[in-house]
Amino acid sequence: MENFTYCSPTEFVFGKGSESECGRYVRKYGGSRVLLVYGGGSAVRSGLIDRIRASLEKENIALHELSGIQPNPLDTPVYEGIALCRETGADFLLAVGGGSVIDTAKAIAAGVPYDGDFWDFYSGKAQIAAALPVGTVLTIAAAGSEGSGDSVITKTDGMLKRGAGSPLLRARFSILNPALTQTLPAYQTACGATDIMAHVFERYFTNTPEVEITDRLCEAVLLTMVKETPRAIADPDNYDARANIMWAGTVAHNNIVGVGRQQDWNSHALEHELSALYNVAHGAGLAVIMPAWMEHVCAHDPMRFAQMAVRVFGCQMNFADPMQTAKAGIRAFRRFLHGIGMPVNFAELGADEADIPLLVEKLGIPAGGSRQGFMELTAADAEAIYRIAAHAEVE
Amino acid sequence: MENFTYCSPTEFVFGKGSESECGRYVRKYGGSRVLLVYGGGSAVRSGLIDRIRASLEKENIALHELSGIQPNPLDTPVYEGIALCRETGADFLLAVGGGSVIDTAKAIAAGVPYDGDFWDFYSGKAQIAAALPVGTVLTIAAAGSEGSGDSVITKTDGMLKRGAGSPLLRARFSILNPALTQTLPAYQTACGATDIMAHVFERYFTNTPEVEITDRLCEAVLLTMVKETPRAIADPDNYDARANIMWAGTVAHNNIVGVGRQQDWNSHALEHELSALYNVAHGAGLAVIMPAWMEHVCAHDPMRFAQMAVRVFGCQMNFADPMQTAKAGIRAFRRFLHGIGMPVNFAELGADEADIPLLVEKLGIPAGGSRQGFMELTAADAEAIYRIAAHAEVE
Repeated sequence: MENFTYCSPTEFVFGKGSESECGRYVRKYGGSRVLLVYGGGSAVRSGLIDRIRASLEKENIALHELSGIQPNPLDTPVYEGIALCRETGADFLLAVGGGSVIDTAKAIAAGVPYDGDFWDFYSGKAQIAAALPVGTVLTIAAAGSEGSGDSVITKTDGMLKRGAGSPLLRARFSILNPALTQTLPAYQTACGATDIMAHVFERYFTNTPEVEITDRLCEAVLLTMVKETPRAIADPDNYDARANIMWAGTVAHNNIVGVGRQQDWNSHALEHELSALYNVAHGAGLAVIMPAWMEHVCAHDPMRFAQMAVRVFGCQMNFADPMQTAKAGIRAFRRFLHGIGMPVNFAELGADEADIPLLVEKLGIPAGGSRQGFMELTAADAEAIYRIAAHAEVE
Repeated sequence: MENFTYCSPTEFVFGKGSESECGRYVRKYGGSRVLLVYGGGSAVRSGLIDRIRASLEKENIALHELSGIQPNPLDTPVYEGIALCRETGADFLLAVGGGSVIDTAKAIAAGVPYDGDFWDFYSGKAQIAAALPVGTVLTIAAAGSEGSGDSVITKTDGMLKRGAGSPLLRARFSILNPALTQTLPAYQTACGATDIMAHVFERYFTNTPEVEITDRLCEAVLLTMVKETPRAIADPDNYDARANIMWAGTVAHNNIVGVGRQQDWNSHALEHELSALYNVAHGAGLAVIMPAWMEHVCAHDPMRFAQMAVRVFGCQMNFADPMQTAKAGIRAFRRFLHGIGMPVNFAELGADEADIPLLVEKLGIPAGGSRQGFMELTAADAEAIYRIAAHAEVE
């Protein structure tokens, strides 16, 4: 196990009706003038936004709003939100929605006290040194942004999707009411579940030896997702399935399962180019990319894939030929994704194989260089993974 | 799953050499005048205390010391520490040791700003409303106090062992260097491991349905302990086994694996009377009590015990008669404990069956009343569990 520091100070408020507490929690964490950030649509129609407004009014918290945040969130509303905060003197960001809304609120929070362009944090030009406090009310179990210090934004100019991270971006509180996710369409539920599983796999596939505790914690989250996701798809109103998925989604990405080990975020990077180019759901892109990545890198450490196959997907170990078990595990994962309604290849995703050179180019691996990870990826590796993803089939 | 709030704000600093950072972390969390609390003996001989002093001096932190804290810590050094803090103006408690030292430091931290007797918090007479900040340098993986908001102290008058809890008692930072535990004798290592497993079992045995995520997380910690503990016993210098156990010990008790479910702390309560009366190690007492408790309550929910048997101890499921699997799991647990050198009955522990009425009396279950939990326990149940524990054998 490698040395690490770990701090997850977010207060999680979990359960039915918990969103009615949000005014009280904003006050608890020092907010008196809130910028409420949300998408619109279902959150408004369901009455959630009205309930949030009422909860804030009850605490005499001044309220300004920024709505219309879209999936794969862009930089434009971030600039708008930064200006709005400066203009109104907002001292607290309250994000009501999923990862896109939360990531937008985090970007605004970091941008307000910064003199330069907030994109500097995402391009790697600057480190976040200060940020307004952020709270969240989560409406989809997926990105894990409610418990992480990460944010991903797409720059409109060039459609570059990039991430920034800082302990300062961790939410002060996150309100998790699984009932709010009961109205999600099956496709969005499945996209969220895929994202959650991907967050675990990106930590699971490691070259760090002797990490039994985090291996087992990763597997705990994956086993839960394998059991609970089909239940939530088959029976959207199943509160308990929703609750298990929601807490799994937070645990998957607040890094309690990922400390002390090298991680691999190459599937996320490869997917980000897909969702930036086609505006497909991140989870759907991951469903196509992640098993393809697994197939490409499997030979690097077949026993680790065999462990996944046996412990997570219940495959029988082939002691004479572990690679067969490894491959069976990857097939099982793809079957699982197909079973919850996820695409498994470019055609099902709405991507075009002819764009692969463009995708590889945007990934920005320099000639002769590579991306670090479980297995180093050259541009040729990235292309090979996109090719597998283009043609994959359920077996 | 039940509604919950969860907040674990402690900063964990994990790995080789991490204790050399402790001065910096005291400063980071606002300390300038420290009361250093420790046991003595090995921490002094190994040079650890000198390294801590040097790290504090480097940051110009004023230092006062309270040493000689014993296992099953008493109230007397708590009073001493409170007086010392008031006298010296100490503004930070730094605990270097295991659960006993940390729990003592927490009790002092809560006692300093309180006008009454600190024992009020442990007798249930008062709630903790303020506390000095606490940091820890952990030297044994066991109590989980480095990541919890709990503290257990024994009142000398009547040898009453009682707990107090508050978010205010969570450490600001905890330094976890697994190498510090390599010098522990096998018996102490095993006691610590037993305590860690008991912390998980007290959460695992629940009547709350539909808690797959926390079930799986509990099992992840247990599986890790089953694998790593015998390795650490056989090869004390195995850093990786020590590291996995140490992080498992923190995860076992910072409640990430226990949220949203009813918990059962009756085995701990039954054990506390044993360690208060005989001054035996808490883990050793748990090794005797916990399987006995399991045997007594197993019929309440055989399928939950069968789940433990199959998922944690690798037993084959007896689909015709799940109770057989449940019992096989309990036998496997007791064999495991015996295998790591733990006592399995009163004689091996150094307890006397003749004291059972006294133990039951001190437990304080009122006539006609019971203790809540997985299964409600009357005084007769408690007596039955002590009797099983008195005579248990490895099968």
